[in-house]
Amino acid sequence: MIQERLQALREKMKERGIQAYLVPTDDFHGSEYVGDYFKCRQYITGFTGSAGTALVLPDMAGLWTDGRYFIQAERQMEGSGVTLFRMREPGVPTIHEFLKKHVKAGQCLGFDGRTVSAREAECLEKLMEENHASVKSDIDLIGEIWQDRPALSCEPAWELELCWAGESREEKCRKIREEMKKKGADAFLLTSLEDIAWMLNIRGNDIHCCPVVLSYLLMTETEIRLFANKAAFSDSLREILERAGVSLYGYEEIYDHLAKLPGGMKVLLHKGKVNGRLVKCLPEDTVILDQVNLTLLPKALKNETEVANERIAHIKDGTAVTKFICWLKKNVGKIPITELSAAKKLEEFREEQEHFLGNSFDPIISYGEHAAMNHYSATPETDVPVLPEGLLLADTGGHYLEGSTDITRTVVMGEITAEQRKFFTAVLRGHLNLAAAKFRYGCGGVNLDYLARSPLWEMDEDFNHGTGHGVGYLLSVHEGPNGIRWRLMPDRDESAVLEPGMITSNEPGYYVEGEYGIRHENLMVCKEAGEKNHIRFLCFEDLTMVPFDLDGVDPKQMTEKERELLNQYHEKVYEKIAPHLTEEEREWLREATRRI
Amino acid sequence: MIQERLQALREKMKERGIQAYLVPTDDFHGSEYVGDYFKCRQYITGFTGSAGTALVLPDMAGLWTDGRYFIQAERQMEGSGVTLFRMREPGVPTIHEFLKKHVKAGQCLGFDGRTVSAREAECLEKLMEENHASVKSDIDLIGEIWQDRPALSCEPAWELELCWAGESREEKCRKIREEMKKKGADAFLLTSLEDIAWMLNIRGNDIHCCPVVLSYLLMTETEIRLFANKAAFSDSLREILERAGVSLYGYEEIYDHLAKLPGGMKVLLHKGKVNGRLVKCLPEDTVILDQVNLTLLPKALKNETEVANERIAHIKDGTAVTKFICWLKKNVGKIPITELSAAKKLEEFREEQEHFLGNSFDPIISYGEHAAMNHYSATPETDVPVLPEGLLLADTGGHYLEGSTDITRTVVMGEITAEQRKFFTAVLRGHLNLAAAKFRYGCGGVNLDYLARSPLWEMDEDFNHGTGHGVGYLLSVHEGPNGIRWRLMPDRDESAVLEPGMITSNEPGYYVEGEYGIRHENLMVCKEAGEKNHIRFLCFEDLTMVPFDLDGVDPKQMTEKERELLNQYHEKVYEKIAPHLTEEEREWLREATRRI
Repeated sequence: MIQERLQALREKMKERGIQAYLVPTDDFHGSEYVGDYFKCRQYITGFTGSAGTALVLPDMAGLWTDGRYFIQAERQMEGSGVTLFRMREPGVPTIHEFLKKHVKAGQCLGFDGRTVSAREAECLEKLMEENHASVKSDIDLIGEIWQDRPALSCEPAWELELCWAGESREEKCRKIREEMKKKGADAFLLTSLEDIAWMLNIRGNDIHCCPVVLSYLLMTETEIRLFANKAAFSDSLREILERAGVSLYGYEEIYDHLAKLPGGMKVLLHKGKVNGRLVKCLPEDTVILDQVNLTLLPKALKNETEVANERIAHIKDGTAVTKFICWLKKNVGKIPITELSAAKKLEEFREEQEHFLGNSFDPIISYGEHAAMNHYSATPETDVPVLPEGLLLADTGGHYLEGSTDITRTVVMGEITAEQRKFFTAVLRGHLNLAAAKFRYGCGGVNLDYLARSPLWEMDEDFNHGTGHGVGYLLSVHEGPNGIRWRLMPDRDESAVLEPGMITSNEPGYYVEGEYGIRHENLMVCKEAGEKNHIRFLCFEDLTMVPFDLDGVDPKQMTEKERELLNQYHEKVYEKIAPHLTEEEREWLREATRRI
Repeated sequence: MIQERLQALREKMKERGIQAYLVPTDDFHGSEYVGDYFKCRQYITGFTGSAGTALVLPDMAGLWTDGRYFIQAERQMEGSGVTLFRMREPGVPTIHEFLKKHVKAGQCLGFDGRTVSAREAECLEKLMEENHASVKSDIDLIGEIWQDRPALSCEPAWELELCWAGESREEKCRKIREEMKKKGADAFLLTSLEDIAWMLNIRGNDIHCCPVVLSYLLMTETEIRLFANKAAFSDSLREILERAGVSLYGYEEIYDHLAKLPGGMKVLLHKGKVNGRLVKCLPEDTVILDQVNLTLLPKALKNETEVANERIAHIKDGTAVTKFICWLKKNVGKIPITELSAAKKLEEFREEQEHFLGNSFDPIISYGEHAAMNHYSATPETDVPVLPEGLLLADTGGHYLEGSTDITRTVVMGEITAEQRKFFTAVLRGHLNLAAAKFRYGCGGVNLDYLARSPLWEMDEDFNHGTGHGVGYLLSVHEGPNGIRWRLMPDRDESAVLEPGMITSNEPGYYVEGEYGIRHENLMVCKEAGEKNHIRFLCFEDLTMVPFDLDGVDPKQMTEKERELLNQYHEKVYEKIAPHLTEEEREWLREATRRI
């Protein structure tokens, strides 16, 4: 089937005089997950993973993806004629290197300009220019051959009321316009779905696990145009938006609208986020102010209402996860439990909570050696029974009207080794020390990451992922500009100065391939910690309220301060969660949060 | 006198059609200290501080300097007609803002282009261009009016032999040329005096406390031209240099030489370091590769010989400082001691050491409230007696053939308050925790600074300076690109990844204005700490070997680990230093390094 599709694509390429056609994974908004309509790369390769880029030439087809997906891609593309390029393996060319070598002078590279960022589009154009080759990006050849392509998602949009959002859309827009003025921008083009949803206090269901509405937005001093599927908006929502000065246009109309903007306008947009075709549409004499979205920082700074709501969301979520752990530990070895059935059980506990809207990401319940794979997500094929031994890692989260959660607990299912206990404790020490940080205003995650890693570094060990990421309010669980990493990565929006109201995860881990994995994750909100001599201090408050499994802890490896931090946290967990449990669960929690 | 000088300068300005004349502090090499020949700003304002910029207009004269010098500048410029501009105080314009406002269209700003970096010269030109004003920078009006100007320093240059340098000048030049090739540079223009001295394994005495030779250097694939005062070079040194392919030219000849370079050459230079007139001299079609000096990193990575030598230098220096502290504590209250006499005594102890060449910076011996002023250096006017009470801070260092030292100890002279003890201990805890850091290769100071500050941050306190700076080998005690700071300062060369062989200071402090100051400073060398699973770890080794005053320490405020770190350090100090002391001193040291 893939071979037929490739054949059809190559015919289209020939018709258009295109010798290389690129198929990225992105939707038109650079979303983390993409809807079925956008799965062109999957359509043309058969590979279903969340990251990768396909390239089709007349006589070859390739897929570039990273280490997480080598095995899966190999299996899914067997016999398809698509070659797997293992990204970052020695000797494997990057896609840019490959294009540089294979697209010759006079040839043409094609891609749908809506599926790459303006920044990437410019890179590709420059690359082709160097080769004296051309680029065609106002096409969608997959769309032309894809007969039964799913429709664009058009789930109902809904209003996030003020009691949840904490700040009116009018006020948010007013502040953004002030920023536009400061930056000298006549217009602000915003296409990141989370940012539009945040600014307009709307939510939807167009992206898997992320309650946003497929849309583009263009804001001037006098107008706000929202380009979206009109059918997704009820009359009442449309009225609400109109009252805030927001007019609704068809989703596709943005391109025409941009083309017809008056010349010489100063348009603020983020080339790393806005798709290439949008920028191509702008009149040639448009002055582009290429800056991070004006919504990025205010969206991250949760207001008091949002923070108060988040505390409530985390008590609800903590109740569900605590009940789950209690159930798991009491029933393992007695009733059949698998990774998938455990995930289902946890979702049931969450569904019992008022205002629960769904998972905030696909649950990761990984048992034993599966937990050593950072991006494992159980499928019927990989599912295994959970036995009364070893470690189970549960990284899950929920969306509530009161906010979004993301929590990892590593649960001791029975006997564990001394080594497992040592690392369970070391990772927990790092987690506790980071959570207890008190720091001067101006610090970013880079200043604090050492706290989370030093217990492992002292043992010549480390974990191979970031320590923390920003989390949105009923939006994406991965949100900038805050984050906690030891390496500075200027290209990623996650090294901002930590500010009160930012919510960041604290999730050190430890993994032994083929054996086991450990991760302890809470969400923390940053808050004021006093001011003295004009020096301002900040600290974190744990939002997540679920006990760490004391069966994995070796108190002797902890300092007195670390034990006290754990005891204080557990005391708070008991206080907040116990009232929402059955008597039996409460008894269990009392023991699970005992002082050590 | 200043008024007469200003009058003379204004006449020269009028002759040349210049309406504003700028007099910076720099020599022609951007050195930290400048020789007497270069003290134009002092000549025209009377202000002797180490930082500041003078600006003379037909009807006003101003001096911009920072908070360290407000009182001194005010006093020294009283009645001179020069207005003090207090930098960074609210409402005080920066010098750029002032120029922007006061130099009108058609007017001309003058300055000696040799005394500003090429980067700053470009800024000033741009600023004037915006005002439709012009710039004249090929002049030295102070030189024209300064009758008894001191001669350029011309102290003898000497060879740093291989046993001290550890790597031949030929080998260093070969590696730099390799780097030039990689960067595509036809020539490398180097004017930082420490870098020239390092590359050629020469030293001199042209800069206060920094044993370098006034010179410029231009390197191509086939030639190395050293532009310096020929009289400073003996025949034998000249021969040694010639054997390494280095030809000697007159100091001033560089400008002509650059002007006559073939067109279209690619010249690598650092615009932040090279003076503006040099860059102006280059043929117009020169391609400038504006990058950090190729010598910056290799100079900072001390080779094995240098590190081995540094250990020896620090034992010698540690012996001198230990003797000094012992003498101080035994004699205070018994014989008259003042800040200046104590400094003299310490220098005497250093002079007893073989290969001691002089102070590596002006000693800071500050007693009582003086220690709260970070840049205090006693003069006969400010000198005070040292009494048997309170704290004395001694921040001093020496140059030896085996390297340079920089050490601060805070000595308890008698009774101290509970608060002083609390902060003495807190600062020491930070110092010990930073010194004990074990970290993954790739970390910079920004990842580790938290360790030094957290004991203070936890008390809502901080200190207002960097935690650590790089230190040169028999060169400047302030050297990039390494450093330890919590704030990223991209303009300063001190945020590099820490590498084995880098020497960095570890000097947290605490200061109460008008009362007292505390600082604990060691130099540390970065070294390997093992590799596992392809992950490389580094740590620090303390070079400085002098006890911390246990009379200031409250062991109860320290964790067990911190006490153990201090005990281990003191054990090593005793082992290394005791053999070099008298019996009486040794007994004192045994007590001073006792386990707590």
